[in-house]
Amino acid sequence: MSLVLDPAAQDLLFREARTANTFTDEPVTDEQVQAIYDLVKFGPTSMNQSPLRVVLVRSPEARERLVQHMSEGNQKKTAAAPLVAILAADNEFHEELPQLFPHFPQAKDMFAASRENREKNATLNAALQAAYFIIGVRAAGLAAGPMTGLDLAAVQKEFLDDDHTPLMVVNIGKPGPDAWFPRGPRLAYDDVVTTV
Amino acid sequence: MSLVLDPAAQDLLFREARTANTFTDEPVTDEQVQAIYDLVKFGPTSMNQSPLRVVLVRSPEARERLVQHMSEGNQKKTAAAPLVAILAADNEFHEELPQLFPHFPQAKDMFAASRENREKNATLNAALQAAYFIIGVRAAGLAAGPMTGLDLAAVQKEFLDDDHTPLMVVNIGKPGPDAWFPRGPRLAYDDVVTTV
Repeated sequence: MSLVLDPAAQDLLFREARTANTFTDEPVTDEQVQAIYDLVKFGPTSMNQSPLRVVLVRSPEARERLVQHMSEGNQKKTAAAPLVAILAADNEFHEELPQLFPHFPQAKDMFAASRENREKNATLNAALQAAYFIIGVRAAGLAAGPMTGLDLAAVQKEFLDDDHTPLMVVNIGKPGPDAWFPRGPRLAYDDVVTTV
Repeated sequence: MSLVLDPAAQDLLFREARTANTFTDEPVTDEQVQAIYDLVKFGPTSMNQSPLRVVLVRSPEARERLVQHMSEGNQKKTAAAPLVAILAADNEFHEELPQLFPHFPQAKDMFAASRENREKNATLNAALQAAYFIIGVRAAGLAAGPMTGLDLAAVQKEFLDDDHTPLMVVNIGKPGPDAWFPRGPRLAYDDVVTTV
């Protein structure tokens, strides 16, 4: 009763959406990914840093290179998913701040001194954007299968560079047969929220 | 056209939603926060870690203690917002894994050895949940004002403990007069997404 979001949208994005472990063969098109991005790009980040970068792993050869770095339990579904995306943080995001945060010209210089500070900001804000992206995949009527069980250092070396840190890999597609494990329990409100 | 989410929901959550800088006096109730939590708790995290913890800063005395640790540009709005929440990561989340990930009893032990690994997992997954929470605030018809411009170490000392790392502070309420800055530009699809 306290939410204004349409109940069908609540179901689509959160209540009935699940992490899929199997997928149908139906392809995920670039148009769908563009529609997802064009929605979730508006999600907020600190100073509009927008550090998320996405690598779509489409060629069979690239897929094979990725699968070998997934943990054993994630290999089969990553090999089979219609589309697989590597979500990464751009640690040199400050280079884009003159474009992204134009009313504060000093923004880029604030981050120039410390790579450690940039990495911290990039990781936090790319993680926010990764969550927006997962919500966006669901908004496209697709299931997302986000995974952190993989050799992140190897994926970085294979697909990215020193300036881009992978956060997770996401399988994307229409859910297939027996796509879901039973829903895991969630923490009770009073175990998560306190008031002072 | 590629999205199945209702356009009104797209607007509510992403396209028209904005980071508010002013708020009306209308209170944000515990019932609203509970409804937000009960929606966004279903957002996925690695191994269902669910490390997000929320401190609602309701008393005037606590609000005052928080405001002093905000950066100057964030003090006035944090003092005025109907509700302010500190979003934090529980670095001891593994204690809850026997409850949250019951089909894999070794999960807790996997994280027992390394606090550094726990912090990394907690930060990433609490950031995902922070994004779900921001989306949930919008789903309740409220505006969120997430902020990282604050003395996080001081906020941790003042409101949390060594096991809980604050990620951000979020002002929550109905937007007031002149609530928005002009929308910042976003990166083009081709600057964010590459294909291999």
